[in-house]
Amino acid sequence: MDNFNFYSPTQFIFGSEREKEAGKYTKRFGGTRVLIHYGSGSVIKSGLLDRVKKSLSEAGVWFTELGGVVPNPRSGLVYSGVELCKRENIDFILAVGGGSVIDSAKAIALGAVYEGDFWDFYCGKRIEKALPVATILTLTAAGSEGSMGTVITHENGMLKRAANHDVLRPAFSILNPELTCSLPPFQTACGAIDMMAHVMERYFTNTKNVEISDRLAEGIMLTIINEAPKAMTDPNDYDARANLMWAGMVAHNDTCGVGRESDWSSHQMEHELSGLYDVAHGAGLAVMFPAWMKYVMHHDLMRFAQFAVRVWGCEMDFQNSEKTALQGIQRYEQFATSIGMPIRFAELGAKAEDIPLLVKTLGLGEQTMGSFVKLTSDDVRKIYELAV
Amino acid sequence: MDNFNFYSPTQFIFGSEREKEAGKYTKRFGGTRVLIHYGSGSVIKSGLLDRVKKSLSEAGVWFTELGGVVPNPRSGLVYSGVELCKRENIDFILAVGGGSVIDSAKAIALGAVYEGDFWDFYCGKRIEKALPVATILTLTAAGSEGSMGTVITHENGMLKRAANHDVLRPAFSILNPELTCSLPPFQTACGAIDMMAHVMERYFTNTKNVEISDRLAEGIMLTIINEAPKAMTDPNDYDARANLMWAGMVAHNDTCGVGRESDWSSHQMEHELSGLYDVAHGAGLAVMFPAWMKYVMHHDLMRFAQFAVRVWGCEMDFQNSEKTALQGIQRYEQFATSIGMPIRFAELGAKAEDIPLLVKTLGLGEQTMGSFVKLTSDDVRKIYELAV
Repeated sequence: MDNFNFYSPTQFIFGSEREKEAGKYTKRFGGTRVLIHYGSGSVIKSGLLDRVKKSLSEAGVWFTELGGVVPNPRSGLVYSGVELCKRENIDFILAVGGGSVIDSAKAIALGAVYEGDFWDFYCGKRIEKALPVATILTLTAAGSEGSMGTVITHENGMLKRAANHDVLRPAFSILNPELTCSLPPFQTACGAIDMMAHVMERYFTNTKNVEISDRLAEGIMLTIINEAPKAMTDPNDYDARANLMWAGMVAHNDTCGVGRESDWSSHQMEHELSGLYDVAHGAGLAVMFPAWMKYVMHHDLMRFAQFAVRVWGCEMDFQNSEKTALQGIQRYEQFATSIGMPIRFAELGAKAEDIPLLVKTLGLGEQTMGSFVKLTSDDVRKIYELAV
Repeated sequence: MDNFNFYSPTQFIFGSEREKEAGKYTKRFGGTRVLIHYGSGSVIKSGLLDRVKKSLSEAGVWFTELGGVVPNPRSGLVYSGVELCKRENIDFILAVGGGSVIDSAKAIALGAVYEGDFWDFYCGKRIEKALPVATILTLTAAGSEGSMGTVITHENGMLKRAANHDVLRPAFSILNPELTCSLPPFQTACGAIDMMAHVMERYFTNTKNVEISDRLAEGIMLTIINEAPKAMTDPNDYDARANLMWAGMVAHNDTCGVGRESDWSSHQMEHELSGLYDVAHGAGLAVMFPAWMKYVMHHDLMRFAQFAVRVWGCEMDFQNSEKTALQGIQRYEQFATSIGMPIRFAELGAKAEDIPLLVKTLGLGEQTMGSFVKLTSDDVRKIYELAV
């Protein structure tokens, strides 16, 4: 097992109607002048935004608001948010929404306490501080409610880049599964695939003998596989929504990733897809992951066999571990298809002729990416081709 | 799933030689006048205490020390520690040892900022504050390095009582698996049983449909079952020690307990055993858990069948779920025996004729305890009898 630090200081406030406590916790964590950040009108229509404002008012906390975050959140709104924070002396950001809203809030939190361009931190500048961010989650997928990460797309060139630091872990996150019951099936499925991907990026590793992380990862995947179809069949199944919501958090706060190398090349390849076509992140991952798995499986057949047996319940073929490994990948594809996810370029609206552009925008040049198998630009091209 | 809060803000610093960073992290978390708290001479003999002092000195942090904590830590030393903290204006306690040392440190941390008797908090007084505690763990078992709990035995009557609060979660915990390689087999086995018990107290619940906590709990148990025998066979197996060390933390920081009722009656019954006979906590649990399981299994046979199938790999007998359930309990007993743990009173040195005394000291009177099955004094007596 590798040495590691694990730090997940977020206070999680989970369950029915917990958003009513937003004011109490904002105050407890030091918020006095709050920016409420959100996306489309759905949080207005549902009455959620009003409930949150009421809770803040009752706690005597001043607030202003900034809506309009879109999926694959953009730099433009972040710049507006940073300016608003500086003008209004904001000391706390409350993100009400899904991963995009939270990621946008984290970007604003970085920019609000920095003289330069917030985008610097997405280009590798070392992060030192940020305004505290808290979240009220409405979409189970990205795991940003417990993670140290944020992903933003810069409108100049549509570059999608990530920044990571412990100061970006939310002060508190309110997770009410009821808020996710209104999610359409497509978004529910995208969320499930995104969560699976967060676990799988950590699961396929070269680090040996990290039994505890393996077992926790398998437990989270089994939960997603069992619970997602329930939420697809009955959107109001509270327990299914609750299990998915908590699985989404532990899938990405590093609970199942400690002590090992993780990969993330499927995510990077997907970022180029959603950057170019503006497709849903989960849908892009459903396409890229099987292609990546097929390309790298021979690097460690037994790891893929373990995935097939423990996660998908395949029977081990002791005379042909490759067959078992492949079966696991097929079962993943069947699962994705069964919840309405694409698994090939055409279903996504992506085009084979764009592959050279995707490879170029990813910008590896002579470098490699990933850690399970270090991928060159040529490998990346072949993986995109496998996804066609 | 029940509503819950989950808050585990401890910074975990895991891996080889990480104790060298004790000074850096103490300073980062605000410690300026530190009490180093430890147990027997083993941390002196091994050179660990010297390494820790060196690290603190290099960071420019002042410290004093208090050793002498015994297993099932006593109130007497806590009173000395509280007095020392007040006299020396201590602002940070660094526990170097296992669960007993950490629990003793937490008790001192409560008493140091309180005018009255620290024992008040172990008799139900509401906790509001405590000095920050950090830990350098040398024994994988109690989970106190990540938990909100502390258990102390008062020398007046040998009463063993617990106190719990979020302020008792350590600021940071340094977990170096190498420090556990010198543990004798008996203590290694006691640790494994204690960790299993922390998971099982949460696993046997009446709350339905908490798939995520079930799966995480099963993952932790499978890890302990696979890794403990490796550490018994080769005490210097770093990866086995590392897996056990992290499993011990997640077993008790509530990662696998969220959203559900937990039980804790086996722990309470064991506390009376170790209070009366001063036996190792893990050994007492190895005796009490099978007795409790046999007594309550008919309350939810399918839960015990799930335990047997998913954790112990038993084949489900679809015509006789009771048989499967019982098989799981037998497998637990076989596991305990295989690592040298007692499973009956006699092996522990406990006596059947003391059962009335044990029941009386537990002090239920007309009340009940536990939640999976609410136990009366009469139930408790019968469970002790099953353990004979």
